[in-house]
Amino acid sequence: MNFQVVKGMRDFLPEQAKKKQFIEDLCRRTFERYGFEPLQSPIVEDFALLAAKGSGGEAIKEEIYYFRDKGERELGLRYDLTVPLARIAASNPMLQKPFKRYCIGTVYRYDRPQAKRYREFTQADFDIIGSRSVLADFEILQVACDVMRALGLEFKIKVNSRAIMEELAKKCGVAPGQVRDCFRSIDKLDKIGPKEVGKELEAKGIDAKILEEISVNSFEKVKEALGEIECVKELEELLMLAKENGMKEVVFDLSLCRGLEYYTGSVFEAALNEGPSVGGGGRYDKLVETYGGQPSPATGMSFGIDRLLDSLEKILIVGPTTQVFVAPLSREFSLEASRLATKLRKFGIGVEFDVMERSVGKNLEYAKRRGIAFFIAIGENETKGRRVKVKETGSGTEKEFGIDDCAGIAGLVKSG
Amino acid sequence: MNFQVVKGMRDFLPEQAKKKQFIEDLCRRTFERYGFEPLQSPIVEDFALLAAKGSGGEAIKEEIYYFRDKGERELGLRYDLTVPLARIAASNPMLQKPFKRYCIGTVYRYDRPQAKRYREFTQADFDIIGSRSVLADFEILQVACDVMRALGLEFKIKVNSRAIMEELAKKCGVAPGQVRDCFRSIDKLDKIGPKEVGKELEAKGIDAKILEEISVNSFEKVKEALGEIECVKELEELLMLAKENGMKEVVFDLSLCRGLEYYTGSVFEAALNEGPSVGGGGRYDKLVETYGGQPSPATGMSFGIDRLLDSLEKILIVGPTTQVFVAPLSREFSLEASRLATKLRKFGIGVEFDVMERSVGKNLEYAKRRGIAFFIAIGENETKGRRVKVKETGSGTEKEFGIDDCAGIAGLVKSG
Repeated sequence: MNFQVVKGMRDFLPEQAKKKQFIEDLCRRTFERYGFEPLQSPIVEDFALLAAKGSGGEAIKEEIYYFRDKGERELGLRYDLTVPLARIAASNPMLQKPFKRYCIGTVYRYDRPQAKRYREFTQADFDIIGSRSVLADFEILQVACDVMRALGLEFKIKVNSRAIMEELAKKCGVAPGQVRDCFRSIDKLDKIGPKEVGKELEAKGIDAKILEEISVNSFEKVKEALGEIECVKELEELLMLAKENGMKEVVFDLSLCRGLEYYTGSVFEAALNEGPSVGGGGRYDKLVETYGGQPSPATGMSFGIDRLLDSLEKILIVGPTTQVFVAPLSREFSLEASRLATKLRKFGIGVEFDVMERSVGKNLEYAKRRGIAFFIAIGENETKGRRVKVKETGSGTEKEFGIDDCAGIAGLVKSG
Repeated sequence: MNFQVVKGMRDFLPEQAKKKQFIEDLCRRTFERYGFEPLQSPIVEDFALLAAKGSGGEAIKEEIYYFRDKGERELGLRYDLTVPLARIAASNPMLQKPFKRYCIGTVYRYDRPQAKRYREFTQADFDIIGSRSVLADFEILQVACDVMRALGLEFKIKVNSRAIMEELAKKCGVAPGQVRDCFRSIDKLDKIGPKEVGKELEAKGIDAKILEEISVNSFEKVKEALGEIECVKELEELLMLAKENGMKEVVFDLSLCRGLEYYTGSVFEAALNEGPSVGGGGRYDKLVETYGGQPSPATGMSFGIDRLLDSLEKILIVGPTTQVFVAPLSREFSLEASRLATKLRKFGIGVEFDVMERSVGKNLEYAKRRGIAFFIAIGENETKGRRVKVKETGSGTEKEFGIDDCAGIAGLVKSG
């Protein structure tokens, strides 16, 4: 028998899993430093929720893992972390505002698997529910910048406004009923270029004049065209706040549309300078209402952890979780060796112990291969003489300590 | 529209999610201190794997979330973390041994939902693949003890041996073909007591004499009855190692059987002194082979995170992730306030910032309610005078600092 991982999904073996966890931990620490708190929701949701207007719609059935349980309930695996958040916000109106939550978890799509495209992947979402202030959008951008900088990435965070796009479309003669269709085409600018988008718009009978405005891509021009209306003032303040706080990675990009239709104001996209988009988001002031909640302005972003991992995997080095290997010279010294390991762990040191009953040579080899920095062998001399040698596995240099001087050993290990 | 969480599953709102995460982090840190590394596998697995001999068998379909995807593949949500581990160990024979991995993740059962019993729950597994030494079993017990002690729980870790039980059953006249049936009944001792188990055994035509042996529950008696055979010597050494390392919570319990049939040697169960079992495991030397792998001895344990959370929820206090709240006295001071918040975060301090455009009084109230220890207001005096007051929200005492003296402020916050 030979069992494989399910199509489009993948295992993370330790080397890779450690890197993934490093990225997730970094996200988490950053979110928490801004006062975001964790929220967890089930991976299985009612299909009615996933297919509700405002989220996926009935057509989502084709794109997700849909099934019926034994009680004939229609269920599905969540395809993002925003819809469950909106459900929770809608059904818990007593949640204190601002409700700042983060969630790092897997989501599921029944896409055609492609290179670097999986059917199970991990998102790290951070959202603020309850504030309609541009300060909330600004905080989302700050968090995103902090995460990307801490990962050592070269990136841009593109910023635009759905509201501005709509005003602009109106001004360029796009009929109200055609605005969505228009944006769907504009959303392809990155992929197929302005010429093809222009053709698409014409085929849809939409005035392609808006493409000229977009191609200029100047906030000043937008201001001229639309005047000092609310959505222009808001985006201007957002860009000013970013600039004044030294976030030079934040740039205005009039071509940024973002596919999802629930966005109502600012939209964001984080993209590597030499690489793909790794995150996106924006303001979605109507979504919580759609799920039966009280009107609740909301804004947030989502990082694709797998995308970040893909771009960092080759350069990230995450060492072993242990600093010391303790090896008995033979089986009869296991107890003495184990006691030393136990005591060292109490000093907050990671200690691996020989559970294979291997020779000391094999254990030293193993410790070196794993990058464990220090090695202690325990045999008759050590047990009787009550002294041990702590060997640096790299240089081979040794220092002697009393077998009970765990503070001394810990000092060496921590400074090493 | 009103959407609810799926039957038998639950959301973890921030207060609860923080506690759950605290427990998971503690498990993770402990696992890592022993050299266990993370491994992640998909939540969706081939049904053939979940239903393989050695794991659930075809009948598992009734107990799990089973479905077909759009490609007519038979799939299911994983019901434990051991079966995926065995699949990975079987299909990656080059993994370095010992392969010590941990995994904290959700698993799914289509049980009847009951109080404190969920259809989605979180397990924290830690296993050692590749060692048949009793030292590996010992390490598993050490880790389990460390986790439970660090959580401040009063507990026992019951230890027994499947091999000893089988020898004992043989000696008590249980026919080889009836051993499993016999153990299934003995497994109910905790729930229905010896009298009912005795009746059950008689009804199955099994000699109930073994119940007497169990009721004495003495390792010395077992030794007398079976002599110095391999499995007795192994358990004796395991108990000795635990005793000599000060793990007085580890106790021999001859009535411990554990339901799953893949156990081949030692079996473990962690139980609260005044409460339920919160974890279990044991040695399963044949499982990796069952999934097509090379013969790979294995041992491990699994904690039920939800069970641990249930017993700790009322006593755990997990504070806010931020220590400082920065509030502009009015909107025009947002930029100055935001700059201070940004600089303080660079000193490693968690800082919340007003994203609601609230009055300073409301912000102070909010900070107090959230347990945020320090509060800084920024208005005209602060902006012009370049000095700020850092208020302790509890006592109300204030200390003044230069607005750019973030090191000074950080020092106060970190010592506070």
